This record gives sequence, structure tokens and C-alpha cells, in this order.
Amino acid sequence: MGRVFVAGVGLTKIGDHWTKSLTDLAVEAGFKAIESVDGAAPDQVVVGNMFSSMSSRQEHLGPLVSNGLGLVGVPAFKVEAACASGGAAVNVGYASIKSGLADEVLVVGVEKMRDLEPAEVSEALCMAESAEYTQFFGASFVSLNAMLARLYMHEYDVSREELSAFPVLAHQNAATAEHAQFRKVITYEDVARSALVSDPLRLLDCAPVGDGAAAVLLLNEEKADEYRAKQVEIVGSASATNRFSLYERDDLLDFAATRQATRQALSQAHCALQEMDFIEIHDAFSVVAALSVEAMGLSKSGEGARDARTGKFDRAGEKPLNTFGGLKGRGHPVGATGAFQVAEAYLQLTGRAGRNQVGDATLGLTHNIGGVDTSAAVHVLRKV
Amino acid sequence: MGRVFVAGVGLTKIGDHWTKSLTDLAVEAGFKAIESVDGAAPDQVVVGNMFSSMSSRQEHLGPLVSNGLGLVGVPAFKVEAACASGGAAVNVGYASIKSGLADEVLVVGVEKMRDLEPAEVSEALCMAESAEYTQFFGASFVSLNAMLARLYMHEYDVSREELSAFPVLAHQNAATAEHAQFRKVITYEDVARSALVSDPLRLLDCAPVGDGAAAVLLLNEEKADEYRAKQVEIVGSASATNRFSLYERDDLLDFAATRQATRQALSQAHCALQEMDFIEIHDAFSVVAALSVEAMGLSKSGEGARDARTGKFDRAGEKPLNTFGGLKGRGHPVGATGAFQVAEAYLQLTGRAGRNQVGDATLGLTHNIGGVDTSAAVHVLRKV
Repeated sequence: MGRVFVAGVGLTKIGDHWTKSLTDLAVEAGFKAIESVDGAAPDQVVVGNMFSSMSSRQEHLGPLVSNGLGLVGVPAFKVEAACASGGAAVNVGYASIKSGLADEVLVVGVEKMRDLEPAEVSEALCMAESAEYTQFFGASFVSLNAMLARLYMHEYDVSREELSAFPVLAHQNAATAEHAQFRKVITYEDVARSALVSDPLRLLDCAPVGDGAAAVLLLNEEKADEYRAKQVEIVGSASATNRFSLYERDDLLDFAATRQATRQALSQAHCALQEMDFIEIHDAFSVVAALSVEAMGLSKSGEGARDARTGKFDRAGEKPLNTFGGLKGRGHPVGATGAFQVAEAYLQLTGRAGRNQVGDATLGLTHNIGGVDTSAAVHVLRKV
Repeated sequence: MGRVFVAGVGLTKIGDHWTKSLTDLAVEAGFKAIESVDGAAPDQVVVGNMFSSMSSRQEHLGPLVSNGLGLVGVPAFKVEAACASGGAAVNVGYASIKSGLADEVLVVGVEKMRDLEPAEVSEALCMAESAEYTQFFGASFVSLNAMLARLYMHEYDVSREELSAFPVLAHQNAATAEHAQFRKVITYEDVARSALVSDPLRLLDCAPVGDGAAAVLLLNEEKADEYRAKQVEIVGSASATNRFSLYERDDLLDFAATRQATRQALSQAHCALQEMDFIEIHDAFSVVAALSVEAMGLSKSGEGARDARTGKFDRAGEKPLNTFGGLKGRGHPVGATGAFQVAEAYLQLTGRAGRNQVGDATLGLTHNIGGVDTSAAVHVLRKV
């Protein structure tokens, strides 16, 4: 099968974009990605997004974005997998090129969250979980993750302070990232003193609410040669699902979707996790970061947070994690996050990560979750 | 590239399903499709749906449906392209198999509309159009199509009565279709006497509001051989987009997305439109049916409705159209419609269409629109 290259990317800053619509953000990111590659003319547009219907009373984002970019006529549609919508959209764009049905696919992840009231954001996010069996009983998305954190701390004797290692790490990296929502470092004390959201999770354990868009231009080999844009290849693209709701699972602390998607993507890439020079994980909450590195095999069960505290995942550490700040620091405009991750991996692999550069990076992995590990989309990228 | 086969289908009846949830309907259709093929074990699930967030406060339909079917672990996501979501989902499932990344893809189109109040349905449908530039000015989806009907009648000197040929035809075929929402014939007088919805469109010009789901099991050639399910092949799968909103178009009466997607799908299939033994078009409104057959090349510009009136499109006519009643008679659970069309084509090509059978059918085309021809998904199916 043909090879798939990331030829260019485009990012908006993440934060409050009161003056820009959902379409504005998506078009801004998409245009940057297209104009970064001389000659590029996408023949398909895939938009990753979770809840434009609630935030903007808008669906049909595929043609909305392609039309906004002046790409009249091309196939265009939206892909949704809750907070993994961006990663799933890259999966679908990758498959389109592999199929031979498209030569140049523009994938745009976008989410507009700040136009909603906080309670509405909570309601929108909870659509990742079952309306009939979970939302119905009053669970919010944060409260589900809080229960998971409580169980994790109990099962593995992990302290509340140890969990804070992930947000501290995230902000350390976000502090120097241009597109990040929070360009500042935080301390363990800051996490401990931040508002309690859902015990034991505090405000600084939780990825923030923000608007943003990220675009990734994918090319087949012929086009990558033609446009002299053959620097980064997607060598693994997989996704997997877990049992839908937490109450259906045998082991709540086993992120099976993450585990399976990671294994498959690495298998496609003929690589081992140990070979990755950096990894972008879905740290929507501190506990999700811990369970993700454990499911991937970066840490032993129960050791994820403690590993983070030792500096193992620092930018200068053994295995740099979330090099631009991850969901917690860079921000988490939900349907855009998976596209941000792939774009950031491209920046690392092309040496364009600025002050966030990981030295000599040739392999990177991105990991995007929908729900509480209900679905996961994983990509492996390699410098050519 | 590999070939793609439709190995089995599953349909729910369309109508009021007060006692069944969105998930119930999708799982019912999906299960029927899977159990119709001995040995089938889908390794990917693609769900076509437009507005589950509004109807059911539910997103993440991919894993919700795969989990409901007991397909734990498989990749699963939702595809949205407004009323063409079902067709776009088939496009994506087809590409997945072509890419070699999946062997057996279950595509499920589903929509739950009857839980919404009529004004909410109107609001949900209008998300196919621009929130910023069209919804904002108070246009509803019916009113946009009504303006188009007025223009069509004016430009081509078509009478109100001539337009009624399409709903009359649709109900004629729906009357004998088991899964159809309206199993009854209607007359030109019935259309003329039905309530005015948005002048000149009357109630019986408009596809109804209903709940329903349709599933299509796609296999690669190896699996189709293994399961002895090699009866129907998808030989063309294309989609295209028009300028997003009506106000942006040079010629409102040119359905460019329909024209382009039809041409591409036929080109992939190495077939001419004239070879099709039946065609399933997106007759959401009488005028949309007319403009669709004209854009495809079945009728000359301005002649679609008059052709319908002559009986050209009757089941025993020159070119049978909407053989199970189309959107108007069979029903239009929006995100499911494209999957219903492909499933119906499968029934025709395998001789399982019952009283709706078109004799000796070996080639069929399905045509699904999102918005007012903003996007279109077209498939060509062939009996093997």
C-alpha cells in the first residue's frame, strides 16, 4: 500500500476567540497548512469535531470548511469520536490516501467551547458517555474521572501529590509553546491549592476549556515528491475501542483501547515504544495521563505518576512527554486535540519546535482518547 | 485496488419508535446485517448520523453502536455530512476496505427524529445550512427549498401540479415496501389539498419526519469469498460538494455536487447512467427530486417533473426511480437515508425486493444529498 506523508500543518492559538467563529478558526488553520506547501490543492477535506451543534448550532462542517477555503467541489465530511474526533479524522484521512481515492487530504480539527456556559460545556462533554445509563444518573465527565482517580490512588497507594506531577510537567512545557493556552509554569502547591472540582480532582488536574483549530495536510508519495514535502511520514495509524461505559468494564484501571491502538500503530510502524523520541498523550485529567502511560507500557501499573515525578517524562528526560504542554497546558479544544498532537509531532520531527524542540527526534507517537478510554486513536510519525 | 462487496443488510421500519432509543435502532439494524452473513465479524464500525446530540444528548455513536453489537475493541467512529451522513458513511467504509486497513466494515445509518418537537426538528435540519449567514436570517430548511421551487417553476414554466408527480410516484412504490413509513398511495389531488408548509411546497411535497436505522455490511474480496457472500459489488463510490449556501451560487438550479459525484461514481464504475436498471435519488422535496434527475442527466433541464408525470420513472417505466418509495414514501431519518438507499439497491440486485422488485436488475445507483445539494454522495452497485 502507498505511503502517507504529513506535508504541512497549521495551528491557531488556543484560548478565548470571542471574535472568531468555528468556521473562522478552521479556515485559519487550514489555510496555514495549505499555504505552507507550494502547489498543494487538497482533493478531500476531513473535519474532526465533537459538538459544533451545541456550541454553534452548526453541522455539515466538511463542506463549510472546504468552501471557506475555496476548495469548491471536493469531497468533505465530519468525523466524530468525542474527544478523539481529531485523531479519528487523521485515521480517516490516512485511510483515504491509502485507498488511492484521494491524493491530498486536509484534516482540520476544530472546537469552539468558550461560547458555551460552563454547565453547557459539562453537558456537551458528557455526550461522550451513555445518555441512557450514565448521564441519566447525574454523572458528569469530571466526576467519572474523579471516581477513577480515587480508585487509582486506592489500588496503587498513590498520593494526591504524586498525581500532580502530570499537570506540573504539562505547564513546564506549555510555558514556551506559542500556541498554548497557558504559557506559565505551575508548582505542586499550585495544584494543591487550586479549587476542588470533583474530589480528588482539582482545577489544575483538568484540561481547560478553549477554542482552537489545527490542520494537517496529508499527501500520497507522488504528491509529496512533486511538492518536495517528504519530510515526515505517518508509519502507523490505528484506533480501538473499549467497553463503552465504565460500569461495563471488568477492570476500570485498564485502558484497553489505548493499549490496543498503541500496539497496532507500533506494529504497523514496525517499531517498539522504546524507540519513540517523544510521545504526546491525552492528559485530559491527571489520572488519565497516568493510566495512559501505563496502558501503553511506558510505566508499570500504578507507577505512571511516580515516574512523572522522577523527571522521566521531562523534555530532557528519558522519554519526553507532551512536549508542547499536552491537553493540560497547550489546551484541549476537544475535537481539535488529536490534530494538534499530530501537528506538534510534525513540528518536532522537522526541527521547528522552537524552544520546545526535542533533540534529534526521528520518531514520535500521538495518543488521543474519546470518553474515558472508550475510544483511542494513535499515530506513529517518522522523519524521512 | 481491492474490490468491495455488500454482503448483507439490515433495516428497521421507519416511523415512530417511541420505545426504542437511538442505540436500540442502530443495534437492531446492525445485528440483522451481521447475522445475515454466516461468519461475519466486522473489524470496523462506521455510523452515519446527523443530529444525535440534539435528539438524544448523545455523541460518540461509533463505540456506542459497536459496543451494543458486542464488537468490543474494533475501531468505530461517526461520519456526518448533514442529510448525506449515511451516504458519506458508506463512502468512508468503502475507502477503509480499499485501503486494506479493514476487511469487514459495518456501516450503520441512524436517526431519531420523533423525540423532538416539530420546531426542534426544523432547527436541527437547518444546521445543514450556515448558522452565521442563513439560519441567522430566519430561513428554515423548508423555506430555502420553497424558494428554489418557486424559481424552478418560474424559470422552466413548470406548474405546481407537475411538481406533484414525484410524491405521487414515491407513494406508489412505498405502498408495497415493508420498511416504508407510508404504505399508501396518494393522488395529485391529495398533494394539492395537503397543508401549505412553505409556499409553494405543501405537506406532501416534503419528506416526513421519522426514526429508523439501516446497516450495510461491506467486505473485501477475500472475506466475500470466504463467507460466500459475493453477490453485490460497489463499483463506484464518490462524493462532492457545491458552494455551501444558496446565496453563494451562480446558478441556484444547477445541482453541481450531484452532477459531479454522479459523474465520478459512474466513471469509477466504467458505466453510463443509461445502463442503470434503477436509481434511488434524494427526493427530500419535490423540487429536489426534479433538480436531481436533471443534474444527473436523466432529464433535460426543466423537464424532470414532466418526465416523472409521463411515467418514465415508474417501476415499470423506462428508468425506475426510488423503487421503495424514496425519502418521501419510505421515509427520511436523515443520517440513515444514504444507508437505506444502498441497502435497497442490495435488495433489488439480489432479487429480494419482494413486491417492489425491478425485473432483471444488474446495476443500480444511489444518490444522497446533504443540505440543498451542498454535498452529495453517490454509489453504483452491480450484481456479480
